[in-house]
Amino acid sequence: MSKLITPRAEDYSRWYTDIVLQAQLADYSPVRGCMVIRPPGMAVWERMRDALDGMFKATGHENAYFPLFIPESFLHKEKEHVEGFAPECAVVTHGGGQKLEEPLVVRPTSETIVYSMYAKWIQSYRDLPLLINQWANVVRWEMRTRLFLRTMEFLWQEGHTAHATEEEAEKETLTILDIYDTFARDWMAMPCLRGLKTNAEKFAGAVRTYSIEALMQDNKALQAGTSHNLGQNFAKAFEVRYQTEAGELDFVWNTSWGVSTRLVGALVMTHSDDQGLVIPPKLAPTQVMVVPIYKEAEKATVLGAMDRIIKDLSSVVLIKGDARDGMRPGFKFNEWEMKGVPLRLELGPRDLAAGQVVVARRFSPEGREAKQPMRLDALATSVPAMLDEIQKDLYDAAGARLAANTRPVEGYDAFKQELDGRGGFLQAHWCGSPDCEARIKEETKATIRGIPLASPPEMSDSGSCLICGGASSRRVYFARAY
Amino acid sequence: MSKLITPRAEDYSRWYTDIVLQAQLADYSPVRGCMVIRPPGMAVWERMRDALDGMFKATGHENAYFPLFIPESFLHKEKEHVEGFAPECAVVTHGGGQKLEEPLVVRPTSETIVYSMYAKWIQSYRDLPLLINQWANVVRWEMRTRLFLRTMEFLWQEGHTAHATEEEAEKETLTILDIYDTFARDWMAMPCLRGLKTNAEKFAGAVRTYSIEALMQDNKALQAGTSHNLGQNFAKAFEVRYQTEAGELDFVWNTSWGVSTRLVGALVMTHSDDQGLVIPPKLAPTQVMVVPIYKEAEKATVLGAMDRIIKDLSSVVLIKGDARDGMRPGFKFNEWEMKGVPLRLELGPRDLAAGQVVVARRFSPEGREAKQPMRLDALATSVPAMLDEIQKDLYDAAGARLAANTRPVEGYDAFKQELDGRGGFLQAHWCGSPDCEARIKEETKATIRGIPLASPPEMSDSGSCLICGGASSRRVYFARAY
Repeated sequence: MSKLITPRAEDYSRWYTDIVLQAQLADYSPVRGCMVIRPPGMAVWERMRDALDGMFKATGHENAYFPLFIPESFLHKEKEHVEGFAPECAVVTHGGGQKLEEPLVVRPTSETIVYSMYAKWIQSYRDLPLLINQWANVVRWEMRTRLFLRTMEFLWQEGHTAHATEEEAEKETLTILDIYDTFARDWMAMPCLRGLKTNAEKFAGAVRTYSIEALMQDNKALQAGTSHNLGQNFAKAFEVRYQTEAGELDFVWNTSWGVSTRLVGALVMTHSDDQGLVIPPKLAPTQVMVVPIYKEAEKATVLGAMDRIIKDLSSVVLIKGDARDGMRPGFKFNEWEMKGVPLRLELGPRDLAAGQVVVARRFSPEGREAKQPMRLDALATSVPAMLDEIQKDLYDAAGARLAANTRPVEGYDAFKQELDGRGGFLQAHWCGSPDCEARIKEETKATIRGIPLASPPEMSDSGSCLICGGASSRRVYFARAY
Repeated sequence: MSKLITPRAEDYSRWYTDIVLQAQLADYSPVRGCMVIRPPGMAVWERMRDALDGMFKATGHENAYFPLFIPESFLHKEKEHVEGFAPECAVVTHGGGQKLEEPLVVRPTSETIVYSMYAKWIQSYRDLPLLINQWANVVRWEMRTRLFLRTMEFLWQEGHTAHATEEEAEKETLTILDIYDTFARDWMAMPCLRGLKTNAEKFAGAVRTYSIEALMQDNKALQAGTSHNLGQNFAKAFEVRYQTEAGELDFVWNTSWGVSTRLVGALVMTHSDDQGLVIPPKLAPTQVMVVPIYKEAEKATVLGAMDRIIKDLSSVVLIKGDARDGMRPGFKFNEWEMKGVPLRLELGPRDLAAGQVVVARRFSPEGREAKQPMRLDALATSVPAMLDEIQKDLYDAAGARLAANTRPVEGYDAFKQELDGRGGFLQAHWCGSPDCEARIKEETKATIRGIPLASPPEMSDSGSCLICGGASSRRVYFARAY
């Protein structure tokens, strides 16, 4: 048990911060609300970025880069948008020693600057669809920040597309939601609920916002990615028109969508434990750590074997060796467990002589051996297979946790009891009124995380609204959220 | 000849801008001095980034991410640094609707914020060397901007390292210079001169700045990358100390180094021509464009063959097909030539029947066929081989141009005549005095691009300073520069 990490049962919030700091994913910076992403954290984010980037490109999107600064007047062109974002903006008033004629806003999101360019680039239906993504930093003034989860500056990707028809834009919005959900499932081993946001919760300027919502270990929800159908709101504000095949002028239909470094926080709170960080193998910058065990006389033999193993496996897995002198193997075991390396190979002279090593899994659910011997001559197939198994085990464990903590609830009293008790996702009836939604939020801090997209039977019965008792034809997902 | 692109002989500066805009590498943005990097430009920058990133990681560097904002007081902690950068800063004075107590500077470079963190992370010699890089955007307030070459915001990488000894820091500085030079040569096909900057030209806060300098087609120099030995200047300003093996406290030795999206501009001005963009194959996002040629009856056959070729070659080269309907092949040829695709495959029914295609090189120096038939069954080896050949030809052509325009010159009159005539790099004698250097700059706009690192014979004779006639034991490189 690491003394550097507060147990979850004692203080989940401190546990989270301890993990982020001790595994060196990030650190506080001298600028209030801004964090420094340290190399181990950046390596995870880069692996996330590369995986998502591949999925975006495979669906026809290209990367571009738009300016960090947005003229303040641009923000005001879309009414809902400015109401949502203006209070959160950092504003540049001076540049090159002079006061600026018009202040510049540091982008909190880039719809306005992007669509001002699209107005220039798009003339005809031949220019559509326009499918662009950017990887960038954005700034939203936050008073209460938490490493990765809520920071003043964060890294993200933001997609911005333009389409000839409403249907095509809606299809794009859902294609991206699907990519996010697939990424969360296949890479992060993090099962999510998909849903439509209510008007109160949607993006400022969107017609419809879809999201994926994950459940953290403390049974609070976390919005992990959003995809917005913007309709023609921004097209009208920025006059993005195109000539249709029939020769008429029409406004384009836009979508925008994003995920951020927040996902690193979600990853921590989905899989890690009181020993430290747990990273799913597909996102681990180092998948296998080899720790040699030897007395001085055996050193050359053991280190030689280590080098050979690393060389043999480096084409199939991300592997490193820890040959640091003057440290006990047990110390190294703890360090790499705390830092979340999925698999450890322990190399002792006796095992080597017997043609084997000991393999230790960072994550081993019931029914799996935490440690076992593995034949040297089978490592090149057994190690990747075990990493796949760990990836699946992590997903299954998170899926079981999500399933166990997502349940129907009837009536406002039971609702409040369940929230204050176990938390999690509550499937409850809501009449559709913003007033009832607001009252629930105010009184319980729970929000509607999503209206289900499909109609699974457990969400599709009819009932009466938690608050007003009015008719409801389907349940929605409620939870307290990060 | 493209009518969209001004010929170089007519106006080199307009030619450059035409290429950048027409090949859609970048566009002007509504924010003065900021550009939008469009997908074709971004794809080149991403290939540059990936290549450099691989070289940094192979030499033990890791990526991190530091905040965009720097407290204004940090900038003032290193005297030379603040003098150099304060006049160029964009300043955030308001955030979240409130006036800030201390203004925040948008990073023009990150030494100050990085070393404030290093002071926290580094305790002992065991923590050294610390080798960190970041890919980020920076802002420097510029009045006269040019797409890619000089923009208010640009993308770059900045490395920041800390070492236990002066020697180690100097070695790191030169290791990075070597990486930059190798990258320019092997990826950009752009030969460079390496040199040490004079005190007047060095980075604000550095002890020594090294750079690689390339020669553009208009015979102006372009600083393509810089590597700084910072000595203990920043370590003292930010109190970055470590405990030595002997148990004493000492300041660390730092280096910093960077290249930026400016390299995309350098690439354009090294290789492109009056037809449009030329991209070296190793940096081309699309290396081969297949253009089908057919009458309606042959369409299915030709497009079928195109799909097979693309499928066969896609594991060895970056290949795309242009099957757009209603456009003549000649129009497509021009478009992809203008956009710089290194190789074009022309697929006609007659050639296909004869088991071949026509291959057209975007760049073909004297002695190479611009177009030639190639056997279908040899494409998988011949196409990559031809791309390698083009990469080498581009380097050789740029190398010949550099060699032809780098020459010794004696005396100030001849110096000015050569500058106003052909331009290029002039190898001339300088006594070492900042006054003589300043006078030359003021009177001719030429600067010392670098003091040679090695002592090649052509730079090592003794002579007398252009200005004062004082003794000089080696020549330096002068040029007018971007």
